[in-house]
Amino acid sequence: MKFVIVGGDAAGMSAASRAKRNQPDLEVTVLEQSGDVSYSACGMPYNIADPARDMEDLVVRRAEVFRTKQGLDLRTGHRALAIDRTARTVSGEQEDGRPFTIPYDALLIATGASAVIPDRPGFTLPGVVALKSLEDGRRIKERLAARKVARAVILGMGYIALEMCEALCARNIAVEMVKPRPRFLPWMHPDLAAKVKQEVESRGVGVHAGHEVERIEGQEDTLRVHCGDLTVEGQIVLVAVGVKPSNALAKGAGLELGPCESISVDRTLRTSDPRIYAAGDCADAYHVVTGAKTWVPLALRANRAGWAVADNVTGRKTELEGVAGTSVFKVFDMEVARTGLNASEAKAEGFDPVETVIEARSRAHAHPGASPLLVQMVGDRQSGRLLGAQMVGKEGVVHRVYALAVALHQKMTVEAFSQCDLAYAPPFGPVWDPMLTAANQLVKLL
Amino acid sequence: MKFVIVGGDAAGMSAASRAKRNQPDLEVTVLEQSGDVSYSACGMPYNIADPARDMEDLVVRRAEVFRTKQGLDLRTGHRALAIDRTARTVSGEQEDGRPFTIPYDALLIATGASAVIPDRPGFTLPGVVALKSLEDGRRIKERLAARKVARAVILGMGYIALEMCEALCARNIAVEMVKPRPRFLPWMHPDLAAKVKQEVESRGVGVHAGHEVERIEGQEDTLRVHCGDLTVEGQIVLVAVGVKPSNALAKGAGLELGPCESISVDRTLRTSDPRIYAAGDCADAYHVVTGAKTWVPLALRANRAGWAVADNVTGRKTELEGVAGTSVFKVFDMEVARTGLNASEAKAEGFDPVETVIEARSRAHAHPGASPLLVQMVGDRQSGRLLGAQMVGKEGVVHRVYALAVALHQKMTVEAFSQCDLAYAPPFGPVWDPMLTAANQLVKLL
Repeated sequence: MKFVIVGGDAAGMSAASRAKRNQPDLEVTVLEQSGDVSYSACGMPYNIADPARDMEDLVVRRAEVFRTKQGLDLRTGHRALAIDRTARTVSGEQEDGRPFTIPYDALLIATGASAVIPDRPGFTLPGVVALKSLEDGRRIKERLAARKVARAVILGMGYIALEMCEALCARNIAVEMVKPRPRFLPWMHPDLAAKVKQEVESRGVGVHAGHEVERIEGQEDTLRVHCGDLTVEGQIVLVAVGVKPSNALAKGAGLELGPCESISVDRTLRTSDPRIYAAGDCADAYHVVTGAKTWVPLALRANRAGWAVADNVTGRKTELEGVAGTSVFKVFDMEVARTGLNASEAKAEGFDPVETVIEARSRAHAHPGASPLLVQMVGDRQSGRLLGAQMVGKEGVVHRVYALAVALHQKMTVEAFSQCDLAYAPPFGPVWDPMLTAANQLVKLL
Repeated sequence: MKFVIVGGDAAGMSAASRAKRNQPDLEVTVLEQSGDVSYSACGMPYNIADPARDMEDLVVRRAEVFRTKQGLDLRTGHRALAIDRTARTVSGEQEDGRPFTIPYDALLIATGASAVIPDRPGFTLPGVVALKSLEDGRRIKERLAARKVARAVILGMGYIALEMCEALCARNIAVEMVKPRPRFLPWMHPDLAAKVKQEVESRGVGVHAGHEVERIEGQEDTLRVHCGDLTVEGQIVLVAVGVKPSNALAKGAGLELGPCESISVDRTLRTSDPRIYAAGDCADAYHVVTGAKTWVPLALRANRAGWAVADNVTGRKTELEGVAGTSVFKVFDMEVARTGLNASEAKAEGFDPVETVIEARSRAHAHPGASPLLVQMVGDRQSGRLLGAQMVGKEGVVHRVYALAVALHQKMTVEAFSQCDLAYAPPFGPVWDPMLTAANQLVKLL
């Protein structure tokens, strides 16, 4: 039995390793277009922040190790271009231009996502970079090392943009951030978004929301970003306006697509062709709150889905429940977390949302070092169900939101959540945890 | 309608304030034997740690404020001694010796818990102290201010003992800890307990487990604690060997008692006499894992139970689900958390427990500043249910355990928990959160 995997990142390598562990005589072939497999993509901003750290530290396991220790047929520099579903083959091109065609019994598409690059003048200039692959990371780090970079422009204000803003500031680079839509973190409640914006601006970062980039012009080492009434410049321009699923292979094979043109999969990670699986940032998922399909390209889901594919391919039937839409990041000293739906998403999904925002302290009354902690919570007036939550603060935000994610998986009511025994000690929060305070408040409004 | 409350701490004052808010014309009388109401008892070790901080900072709301702003009949210096259930009166003695008798329609016993003081020679010597009331805290702080305290002995190694150990060390006092049973944190898995012990010993604290105190002798300013083969000495001896429910009033009135002789209450917080409620550290609770009664004297439960009593007294029928046995503390740089049952408790309750311990890192691969994080998890072989968990590490422990507490409230299986979407960012943990790694591991063993 031949199991072929296209893409050697989180989902692909998780699937490959586990399939081989489950069934050592399985022939597992991984086709990866780049030379890199199994690295911590999310760690790149933190590595870039520190000139002394080697980018190669982010490699979790080298291709050689997969080949020799795990017995995987791992082919780097192999770009898959087409699937023949009748012949059950994948064909493509090697780095040196030679074609290849290999047969499969089961196929996994784990092609990930790619950075959205606007089709405007100047986006292909040297120094205009994205941060998606390890190769992107190396390119950025080399540019920062090779010349004097005093100023940087970041296009976009999502989590990668904000993490990179922190990283560049750590290297004493002045940062200007630009994005077309007027709201900063538009998915977040305005009170919480304002706290994050304040944190970013307090570090001297220029936050320019509501400016559409028209073109980028290069002049010696400096790049000028023109947005009508605003022009900002720097020696590097990071494009972080979003990602899109790398779906070309699936589209070419006529597989069904889901939200944002991600590859549609069922709970066993099968696509519309039962011999073809998809996992990771290229595939969709069920949302545990709505029950509907969603596209959330995040690392944990990719790893989990990779494992589930391996189990299904090796005869251990596995179904994945879905995602709660939990995501977390840090920018400077601010932790940001969300899970589930915000009020407008809830409304769009047919719920009757009621929302509250509370401000609490991160530590107990009279305990030194406390800072404000904001909790937003959304419930459904009809059913009393918890639908989502957001949190912002300098400590204790990210790990707290996990409790709310579990509650969403369990379809708990706000009232049931408010009864949970979350314990208390003065260094870690008030007697009533801020999440319970928000839940108590929301119960009254529902 | 007259609502009388005995005890003006967490449960009592929560009940009093909320009852008055729910129903402003209700006559609410609180009888408190001391002069202190509404203070952060759990904050005392952190206050004692800093000579510059005023103990009175811990008072959340003064008695005067309750009287004038909230219209409560708050009587400090009133010690309740007996309940006449037929006449529906509480009688007792004021500070100056004058007796009092007051009638009630509904009564709440919120007398809390008191420190266990062994009945051995020397435990009443000056300088042998407990830490339960604010008055205890003041006494300790005054002793530390009034004389040179170079050495301290702490009897017991529970969370109050450990928090006080940290506090005294912060004041450059050498600490020796002594307890009779040989195991350090006996409820904890030995691998996790060893990490905590190591942290305490690394600060130069003497940890003497397995030594029964025979007597304490005083000689000028120094107290000698004799334990057979071991003698330790200091200018202060803290007795922190445990607490017991203050049940004299309830016992005298013939009310039913529960575990550890705490006052037995139903889910509406009613005792065996339907006009008498009990809440806080003197009362028992249902355990959400076992469904059986338990005694967990902790602050959140006390506050929550106080509110529930107020709601029931004012006609808003409220039932409390119970406790998960979640408790957390910090000692030096180590966070410690538990929820639910450990393996031996699970066995005693009739489960078929399977246990795992995993070690993970507190931050992602190659992220700077990571430290080890240990997770213990127990599941039931029969049902697959999660029964409990423990965690130890330098960061991200306490707030993480909340997710497991929610899972226990929901009677989730380990497998269902392992599917939860807990998100990931490099500063906060590995891609697979340590709790998920433990759950994945435990699923294989079940």
